[in-house]
Amino acid sequence: MDRQQLIDEILRKRSFLCIGLDADKDKLPPHLLDHEDPIFEFNREIIDATHHLAVAYKPNTAFYEAYGMEGWRSLERTIRYLNERHPEVFTIADAKRGDIGNTSTRYARAFFEDLEFDSVTVAPYMGSDSVEPFLAFEDKFAIMLALTSNKGGLDFQVTEDRSGEALFEKVLRTSLGWKNSDRLMYVVGATRPEFLGQVRKIVPDHFLLVPGIGAQGGDFNGVCEYGMNADVGLLVNSSRGIIYASKGHDFGEKAAQKAAELQGQMEKALSERNLSL
Amino acid sequence: MDRQQLIDEILRKRSFLCIGLDADKDKLPPHLLDHEDPIFEFNREIIDATHHLAVAYKPNTAFYEAYGMEGWRSLERTIRYLNERHPEVFTIADAKRGDIGNTSTRYARAFFEDLEFDSVTVAPYMGSDSVEPFLAFEDKFAIMLALTSNKGGLDFQVTEDRSGEALFEKVLRTSLGWKNSDRLMYVVGATRPEFLGQVRKIVPDHFLLVPGIGAQGGDFNGVCEYGMNADVGLLVNSSRGIIYASKGHDFGEKAAQKAAELQGQMEKALSERNLSL
Repeated sequence: MDRQQLIDEILRKRSFLCIGLDADKDKLPPHLLDHEDPIFEFNREIIDATHHLAVAYKPNTAFYEAYGMEGWRSLERTIRYLNERHPEVFTIADAKRGDIGNTSTRYARAFFEDLEFDSVTVAPYMGSDSVEPFLAFEDKFAIMLALTSNKGGLDFQVTEDRSGEALFEKVLRTSLGWKNSDRLMYVVGATRPEFLGQVRKIVPDHFLLVPGIGAQGGDFNGVCEYGMNADVGLLVNSSRGIIYASKGHDFGEKAAQKAAELQGQMEKALSERNLSL
Repeated sequence: MDRQQLIDEILRKRSFLCIGLDADKDKLPPHLLDHEDPIFEFNREIIDATHHLAVAYKPNTAFYEAYGMEGWRSLERTIRYLNERHPEVFTIADAKRGDIGNTSTRYARAFFEDLEFDSVTVAPYMGSDSVEPFLAFEDKFAIMLALTSNKGGLDFQVTEDRSGEALFEKVLRTSLGWKNSDRLMYVVGATRPEFLGQVRKIVPDHFLLVPGIGAQGGDFNGVCEYGMNADVGLLVNSSRGIIYASKGHDFGEKAAQKAAELQGQMEKALSERNLSL
């Protein structure tokens, strides 16, 4: 999927919602546990119930790896289902990968070619040659961690260098010089919306993936105020707040209700800024 | 495995060699490709041929994920084989993981409980709560990236803050305050042995995993000079230089020869420092 297709889809659905598919067997509706592949079954119902409200889905690979080969199979089935049934949605492998060049190329092939995700999240610590291999694929994106919403995000990311530039700012600025940097997006946590303004000064045009709405307590209006640009430029993620809205047979319906609440806020934010097709 | 067992094993084998099991089907001896699981078969022969010369094995997960479920199965078989046949070796899942707390816990369980690795490599960018979940397991270790040997390692890791402290130094120093920090080890690249002295000033006692010997051009003697401590404190990794020494039926034998060369250098380094059981 290319950038313009993503923007068009956002404007068509009046939504920039990303739903995190963090499937945890301990939290699944109990009636699903009899299924041969409960996690895939859960994801399938969530996707079918919400795909008119969301533009992106983001399985976090940790939740699948936790179940070994069985989990890997659930992940494969989920991405194949998305690509076959809902090819208009943007898919994100939330894997936070990054390694030396030839090894990153392996990861990139695994997620882009074998699993056919549209994007993968990557970690910046190892620098240019750990990320550039992910940028070598046409119409695919690497979504790099810049400023994360967890407590430990403050340990290193906001450390200022001698010139007063914070590490996350340096990460953003430096990455613009990497090959195919137009295929980058960035993870910027919602728990610090005021930082989004600083981010936008450096990367005015790139898409930002914003986790931390809902369970992590982020401020939706602040995110829009500081983060939105003329192409929308935002994907706002919610995981637990949507997918675990009910443990009953109505879990898909309840997930759709929660997704619709967020989509309603998003529609309003887009309309206020006259962003439409 | 606990720290003392690792040290004893190093002194018993007169080796602190770690062998990287980065299995790439394009580089395997062609006669193995007929096997039902060529990667496991390759690893098994490498392990059997070298386990008296090496104290640790390190599969890089990227090479397994690149083959999807089939690759994950090869990884599972490899670690089970190591744990059953060679329980005295230290095992490292080179995965470079790290995510928000509950997600890191998932990764930790996958690698420590399901696969029963002794250790996992982790990335520091997301800070304390992304790494501490890996430190909650007795006799297990998180090996955190500090200073990596790739070109991009210089992009951010050596950036100095206002006080003149480089990011990799801040990462080391900060991590010492995390819960169960005695279960940390650190990745420090061999292409910059002089930096090992700076590392040792901050973490005199922790083990360092040093990649970059061989294919990446690191200096073995410099590593020992700057990096070794009274408990040895080093695991030096070689991957391609050992495992791909031959593409013939003799690949195990040739790998053992290459491993023996490094083990010989290690024995000398240990003897010169009077490190013995």
